[in-house]
Amino acid sequence: MNRKKGETHWIIPDGFIPPLSSGELISHESICIVNCNNEDTAIYITIYFEDRDPIEKIPMMIHSKRSHHIRTSSLELNGEKIPVNVPYSIEVESDLPIIVQYSRLDSTQPGLALMSTMGYPLKSE
Amino acid sequence: MNRKKGETHWIIPDGFIPPLSSGELISHESICIVNCNNEDTAIYITIYFEDRDPIEKIPMMIHSKRSHHIRTSSLELNGEKIPVNVPYSIEVESDLPIIVQYSRLDSTQPGLALMSTMGYPLKSE
Amino acid sequence: MNRKKGETHWIIPDGFIPPLSSGELISHESICIVNCNNEDTAIYITIYFEDRDPIEKIPMMIHSKRSHHIRTSSLELNGEKIPVNVPYSIEVESDLPIIVQYSRLDSTQPGLALMSTMGYPLKSE
Amino acid sequence: MNRKKGETHWIIPDGFIPPLSSGELISHESICIVNCNNEDTAIYITIYFEDRDPIEKIPMMIHSKRSHHIRTSSLELNGEKIPVNVPYSIEVESDLPIIVQYSRLDSTQPGLALMSTMGYPLKSE
Repeated sequence: MNRKKGETHWIIPDGFIPPLSSGELISHESICIVNCNNEDTAIYITIYFEDRDPIEKIPMMIHSKRSHHIRTSSLELNGEKIPVNVPYSIEVESDLPIIVQYSRLDSTQPGLALMSTMGYPLKSE
Repeated sequence: MNRKKGETHWIIPDGFIPPLSSGELISHESICIVNCNNEDTAIYITIYFEDRDPIEKIPMMIHSKRSHHIRTSSLELNGEKIPVNVPYSIEVESDLPIIVQYSRLDSTQPGLALMSTMGYPLKSE
Repeated sequence: MNRKKGETHWIIPDGFIPPLSSGELISHESICIVNCNNEDTAIYITIYFEDRDPIEKIPMMIHSKRSHHIRTSSLELNGEKIPVNVPYSIEVESDLPIIVQYSRLDSTQPGLALMSTMGYPLKSE
Repeated sequence: MNRKKGETHWIIPDGFIPPLSSGELISHESICIVNCNNEDTAIYITIYFEDRDPIEKIPMMIHSKRSHHIRTSSLELNGEKIPVNVPYSIEVESDLPIIVQYSRLDSTQPGLALMSTMGYPLKSE
């Protein structure tokens, strides 16, 4: 069977880096990506904000047959990073098909919270 | 590549505003929307209840290239709002394609809980 | 626009009723359904177990333009119910198109946990 | 109606077995599968890592009309298992169509966290 190994354009509307943590685990988000192709692929991450222009097309390399868990707090373009405590949205574009999931861990209050969802794939018209 | 930037009709069956909060974070839900088009778009939110007629087509503007995180407790039409502690469902219609995610934070008990899912897109027949 | 108001066949692989609760909220699951059609529809819920035959086609009525949040612990056919503390799966079939989401609240330990996902729609071949 | 009972290729990008637990519930992940076909089916689970080659095609049998909740910590091939505290990704291939959901319970901190999502289905081109 010849299957397409994912999609090349993904959206995650609900991004938010919690400013506080408690206990053993640090509050954070991850963009989780797997590349099932036989070749590495470039990806480009765009960050949309509520009240200002996006940070556009942060480049990154995703290796063949590898899992990548990208902490959103590590993303940076020309010295600009995603601020904590600000609602935002994520767009992931890639040269080769990939699969994208988003997860957040919030330890603001004692007792951990997790949430996760697949990204939403945009398909060609 | 010419891609459709989402869908114009989304459903979230599980809505619920928790009546109680504890600690630093207030229990709330957000409808998270990103508009990747080059133009603003109008959206219309309908709220379905278990035991009475819906609140239909609450209008709102979603700006181009922006992220919107709409607290469901802020929605209002002719003075009518979504009551707390009541299970309900959400329909989002928009003029231009958008992407819709739903998230809930519940701090009723010490120790936070989060849940999230993409909305379900209704497509043209 | 003429849109199909959902799908008539949905699957939720991960069902589980937690046996314990603490604090103010009772551990429970909900199958959340919205019927956007102008007519009521019958639905039929089948429960799959790990080690025995399914409970097949528990009937229920879903009203037009209403939200339904069905506690799985309330489902019953010929006196048979879903036991607590047992992993199982859920199938929802309906006469008219609907949209189905699944959510679980677990308060086994102090501090609440939530999880939620859309059901997986099976489409005609 | 003749419906396809799911898909034969599923991806879950965000896998992680939490190393710690507290309280009554052990931190764990489950791959939840339901086989709605009239026949048993073989499945093959591949695990992708961040920094080394995958564990490929761990075989397993999924019974007809049954629910399966597979703890990822139980997966093993030639004595190799998924280590705890390591981000990874999951691929599930099957001979017959199935439906796949992923859930994680994290009790690292007092107060439980849950997250869940449907797997992402790869379709034939």
